[in-house]
Amino acid sequence: MTSLNDNLIGVPGGAAKLQTPALVLDLDTFERNIARMVAHAKRTGVGLRPHAKTHKSVEIAKRQIAAGANGVCCAKLGEAEALAAGGIDSILLTSPVVTEAGITRLMALNARMGDLMITVDNAEVAARIDAAARAAGKTLKVLIDIDPGMSRTGIRAADAPALVAQVARAEGLEYCGLQCYAGQAQHMESPNERRDATLQVMKEFGALRDALARDGLAPKIMSGGGTGTHDIDTDAHVLTELQVGSYIFMDKQYNDVWEKPGDAIPFEVSLMVQTTVVSANRPGLATTDAGFKSFATDAGPPQLRSGAPDGASYFFFGDEQGGIAYPRDGALLKPGDVVRCVVPHCDPTVNLYDRYHVVRGDTLETIWNVEARGCSA
Amino acid sequence: MTSLNDNLIGVPGGAAKLQTPALVLDLDTFERNIARMVAHAKRTGVGLRPHAKTHKSVEIAKRQIAAGANGVCCAKLGEAEALAAGGIDSILLTSPVVTEAGITRLMALNARMGDLMITVDNAEVAARIDAAARAAGKTLKVLIDIDPGMSRTGIRAADAPALVAQVARAEGLEYCGLQCYAGQAQHMESPNERRDATLQVMKEFGALRDALARDGLAPKIMSGGGTGTHDIDTDAHVLTELQVGSYIFMDKQYNDVWEKPGDAIPFEVSLMVQTTVVSANRPGLATTDAGFKSFATDAGPPQLRSGAPDGASYFFFGDEQGGIAYPRDGALLKPGDVVRCVVPHCDPTVNLYDRYHVVRGDTLETIWNVEARGCSA
Repeated sequence: MTSLNDNLIGVPGGAAKLQTPALVLDLDTFERNIARMVAHAKRTGVGLRPHAKTHKSVEIAKRQIAAGANGVCCAKLGEAEALAAGGIDSILLTSPVVTEAGITRLMALNARMGDLMITVDNAEVAARIDAAARAAGKTLKVLIDIDPGMSRTGIRAADAPALVAQVARAEGLEYCGLQCYAGQAQHMESPNERRDATLQVMKEFGALRDALARDGLAPKIMSGGGTGTHDIDTDAHVLTELQVGSYIFMDKQYNDVWEKPGDAIPFEVSLMVQTTVVSANRPGLATTDAGFKSFATDAGPPQLRSGAPDGASYFFFGDEQGGIAYPRDGALLKPGDVVRCVVPHCDPTVNLYDRYHVVRGDTLETIWNVEARGCSA
Repeated sequence: MTSLNDNLIGVPGGAAKLQTPALVLDLDTFERNIARMVAHAKRTGVGLRPHAKTHKSVEIAKRQIAAGANGVCCAKLGEAEALAAGGIDSILLTSPVVTEAGITRLMALNARMGDLMITVDNAEVAARIDAAARAAGKTLKVLIDIDPGMSRTGIRAADAPALVAQVARAEGLEYCGLQCYAGQAQHMESPNERRDATLQVMKEFGALRDALARDGLAPKIMSGGGTGTHDIDTDAHVLTELQVGSYIFMDKQYNDVWEKPGDAIPFEVSLMVQTTVVSANRPGLATTDAGFKSFATDAGPPQLRSGAPDGASYFFFGDEQGGIAYPRDGALLKPGDVVRCVVPHCDPTVNLYDRYHVVRGDTLETIWNVEARGCSA
């Protein structure tokens, strides 16, 4: 796919001239974030399987694996299909596949991949997948998904041993371990509450592991964790693989986890949306080209990062536009001025774009595709 | 582009078997909405130029034009490029184009189109577009964008005559008229407030028209209006073309405009998101496959339409999933169950999908592409 901005690659100062709204990735910062998480995993002796639902990009998945990850996670079957088509050969699918057509797609994907692993949380669904895998003649690796208490996906720990036993004896399935993702703890802004909630989930997860081991069903893989709890997760010594996702980009929501209580933020913002002023006919107000279609809005408005006067703030001005309100004695914004914003929530914002504009300093170094953009089915 | 669901086209009962989340368009309802707006425009003697920012689809634009519209509106240059590539030859671009690269793209688009019209609200930008059009050797049609009081785009009425005169004498530009879109009035849920606000904007817009006419600069085209005010807009007898968009689909936000005060809703919901239950391990709670990546979230949660027990409500359960909470004595939802939702806000939700699954009753009749999905630059 050609991009509006291909002609700017390598041109000095080209980054400021992008047709916008454009997703911009600062490569130096991104590389530091990758290296920091790898160092953390090595120091704590835990494996890394970063979540690709954040970036949906073959190139980024390849870089994570090259830096030492065991593979990646995907949230949806379509996302896994898109990354596998790009050459990613070790994927954990973290959400359930339950429909007949979905199971058919799963078998086709398993047939062409080296290392596909899925999660199940329901006995009847597991039985259907087992039957399909036996019919397809290739076993499928399975983690049993454990509910961390938020009841989004996962089976309750008390009900898990029966499902583990069913999967372990299923001829079409290979029982590999457990998944438990404490999504409810990731954005808790009280450090003590975040720590207590995470450790409580990990304690129960560890108790389940030990009980299964006593029954001869010891899980090899214990998968879970996220950016907000990555250090607490490893302190708990229960997980074998971390599913961290947002650390590569960061966003306003994750910054707040550390910034609001006054702690040091462990990763840097590498992802921004670049937008251009398109109208400015009132003092103290400018209109940009990035609104509801250019930022996910579930976590409030974007945060201005560069290009706007001191004291300015960004607000949503409808589907197509944003607004910048600034002190009337500040520098005047005019049509064509370029502004960059920290995104409120990185994952669903990335899902709005087809490309990353990868910059080093003021130079657009390359463009990466968001291959799995929109692959939610 | 092939779709996951191509194999279901024409299969009896196929609509219920879509791989989800999927955007579903009920064709009977959609056709009634199109016909109703055409009848309203004919009855009131106003032209129609529906806004394609709602649907971003070549097929839908063609159907609107076949039903009598003068052409369509586009919000962004990329959107106009995508629809023009699909054969749509009369487009009004309703947002400003201000950058050098944008103006170059505009000239290329004008060169290959029969009837492209743009809006300007800034003298310096208008001068640059004039120079580019002269250099390109083809005049460009222009409406002057008037601020309806919300200061998103548009020049204040008091400042407009000078800009109109500049455009009228510019050799590269053809002065065609004025645009004034009262976005602030569209979703007012008090019928009186909505009427008063709209009529006030239209009164001032009409006064500007009359003043320009006295100076020999009578606008041929007076463009504006929206779904929420479509009947008030025509009562005002100021507009020559209506820019209505959402009436073809409707959504929760527009339903509320009439439903909350107890008025009859003038158009029907034709657009839904179909989603599938993927996990259901707790009484009274089911998890679906449609979250923040499958619905725009700026207007609250989706509304359940079919497939869920009485008394159920939908909530966002993160990026990838939705939740359905329902009375514990209701029918049990289980993995694989299919649910349809009215979307909170149609335009930015459509922008998340590549395809419409076009159904009549239980049959998937065809699939239409969302060609301009993501074309916000």
